[in-house]
Amino acid sequence: MYINTHFQQLPNNYLFKEISYRVESFQQTHPDADILRLGVGDVTLPLPKPIVDAMHCAVEELAHPETFRGYGPEEGYAWLRQLIIANDYRPRGVELDLEEVFISEGAGSDLGNLSELFESNNRVAILDPSYPAYVDSSIMAGREIVFLPCHAGNGFVPELPHESVDIIYLCFPNNPTGAVLTRSQLKLWVDYARAHHSIIIFDAAYEAFIEDEDIPHSIYEIDGAKEVAIEVHSYSKSSGFTAVRCGYTVVPKQTGLQAMWMRRQCTKYNGTAYVAQRAAAATYTHPGKASIQSNLSHYKGTALLLSNSLREMGYEVYGGKNAPYIWCRVPKEYNSWSFFDHLLNDCHIVCTPGAGFGPSGEGYVRFSAFSDRCDCEKALDRMKNVG
Amino acid sequence: MYINTHFQQLPNNYLFKEISYRVESFQQTHPDADILRLGVGDVTLPLPKPIVDAMHCAVEELAHPETFRGYGPEEGYAWLRQLIIANDYRPRGVELDLEEVFISEGAGSDLGNLSELFESNNRVAILDPSYPAYVDSSIMAGREIVFLPCHAGNGFVPELPHESVDIIYLCFPNNPTGAVLTRSQLKLWVDYARAHHSIIIFDAAYEAFIEDEDIPHSIYEIDGAKEVAIEVHSYSKSSGFTAVRCGYTVVPKQTGLQAMWMRRQCTKYNGTAYVAQRAAAATYTHPGKASIQSNLSHYKGTALLLSNSLREMGYEVYGGKNAPYIWCRVPKEYNSWSFFDHLLNDCHIVCTPGAGFGPSGEGYVRFSAFSDRCDCEKALDRMKNVG
Repeated sequence: MYINTHFQQLPNNYLFKEISYRVESFQQTHPDADILRLGVGDVTLPLPKPIVDAMHCAVEELAHPETFRGYGPEEGYAWLRQLIIANDYRPRGVELDLEEVFISEGAGSDLGNLSELFESNNRVAILDPSYPAYVDSSIMAGREIVFLPCHAGNGFVPELPHESVDIIYLCFPNNPTGAVLTRSQLKLWVDYARAHHSIIIFDAAYEAFIEDEDIPHSIYEIDGAKEVAIEVHSYSKSSGFTAVRCGYTVVPKQTGLQAMWMRRQCTKYNGTAYVAQRAAAATYTHPGKASIQSNLSHYKGTALLLSNSLREMGYEVYGGKNAPYIWCRVPKEYNSWSFFDHLLNDCHIVCTPGAGFGPSGEGYVRFSAFSDRCDCEKALDRMKNVG
Repeated sequence: MYINTHFQQLPNNYLFKEISYRVESFQQTHPDADILRLGVGDVTLPLPKPIVDAMHCAVEELAHPETFRGYGPEEGYAWLRQLIIANDYRPRGVELDLEEVFISEGAGSDLGNLSELFESNNRVAILDPSYPAYVDSSIMAGREIVFLPCHAGNGFVPELPHESVDIIYLCFPNNPTGAVLTRSQLKLWVDYARAHHSIIIFDAAYEAFIEDEDIPHSIYEIDGAKEVAIEVHSYSKSSGFTAVRCGYTVVPKQTGLQAMWMRRQCTKYNGTAYVAQRAAAATYTHPGKASIQSNLSHYKGTALLLSNSLREMGYEVYGGKNAPYIWCRVPKEYNSWSFFDHLLNDCHIVCTPGAGFGPSGEGYVRFSAFSDRCDCEKALDRMKNVG
């Protein structure tokens, strides 16, 4: 057989595997070190009771012949898709057809698999820095990538591409920089895509952290976006579902891609776990919403603590408002990885080196507001003492 | 953007969607008809108590800070992969490295996604008839397909390809024909793949139904298979997990593809739901094994009932032994779809038309031993009375 040789173009190490390797090596040589993890974007608060109750109910349904169910629809149960439209879209003035919403087992899978809808000869635009999966899945598909540098000079919001691009990955609130787009800024991208017949794959994983009025929660709040945008959602960060595995993707019919995605899912996906779909539905109940807001407030508090404290220590800090990530410039004598090693060796703190997100991430590290609050407090104390 | 034009080569209707459409249309015009579903391969028995208990425990772990966990490893938890090796392989004389076992959210996804490891210029061999996803995912990837006809004349076991092929999809016990391969028959395929540098994607979803000693449960029971075979497993049919969503795939290092698959999963997959992995682990406990064997015995009894009764009625019947599917030749005056319509209209019975699985499936229909036992008994009575 002939293997997909594009895999050979992939960078050698996956960022989070490399971090794990360095942390484990350090722990082995320093078994007593109390390592504080402030890097990875995994949640730390347990699932709220309304979600847990819904999951127990769903498990119990599968235990009895009267309520047992097997395969669900590949696109997800209609009751969940209706809740999504009624809660996440209609209040923002966005109307969607039921057939345009697809339940998934997570945004990560859909962000990768959507790539299959397009030929390999599409030119892809990706923010630099960005979540590594956009780049890696584009390389696997053999696509040319145009990087759009994001730096302090442009407020981590890139200029429109100078050359014509076909597929545009946008993630706002951004991972890793924490940057956000206003309505008028996002409109520029929708207008570009309409003018160039491009498709925007809009990663809205951090939408729940938005607090300011003029920042859109959905790209479909922008006129014309339904013609040119697919929106990918996760319950991982909003509802703590990183172990539950549920998300959803909106593919409007006006993109011309809805029927293709339906076909793709019917061929290569057997539907999302019933327990996960019931858990997602519980996030839209009154008690579910309240508990999720409480968890989000906690994480927002952690974001504020991290960004304020780092700023007080003299660091140049971005993000952390309307977003769970804090993007921190490293001191002049360091680069991303050497500052990562310094924090690990001297403070026993794990952050995420910005260079792992792309060349423009060099000189930064990412801290995550999903980290344990006590760990953050201890970590900040250690950084103050080391100076 | 440029869409993947290979999608335009796909047949218009997905088999099970077409069946649903015909059944729903009939139910609308005959609201009082008691329609009996003997077609789809979805399980009907509820989850056994040991599995349910494990799922409740896992949900409860996610509810408390001391036991909460978020993202798991992309390749699945080591404790589950160890159980798989110790229970599904070692007793059959097969040794695997822990890194060669990948937990998934179902065989359907992996069977589709494995396609990404290969260039589009590979020639693919697919049994005719077969599960539609092998064909559809190969078409989506733009591959040339060589069909290997399976008919009563060759006992539904095809000859080796006359031309050289690169990727071979094999499914034994077979869906839809219920055919099985002996060790010496499977060895021919492994030897072919070794001689032609092909890769076999071996779909072992129905392995739990094997009872005869000389039928291998795993392709790795054949010498040299680790060089040329990927094996895809499902808990859906063995353990009733069609709503739970868990499976696993073995990619031996000797295939040269293990690192590629690991990279693919790290890029496009965030790991299988924790609750599903705990459910899968429970299938390997003593009470778990006992309850699963009890469910399997029930389905095997249904297979025997269906095949014996249909045979007594004068039908030409294959499968149903070592396999959950009964492959039944339709009377001369019918083809697959007209016999489907006859059973639906005159007996209110749903079967699966063989033609939906490929041209060589024409003239057959599939009955499923996963169907409700009472429904089968009622259906067989109706068929006897209609004659």
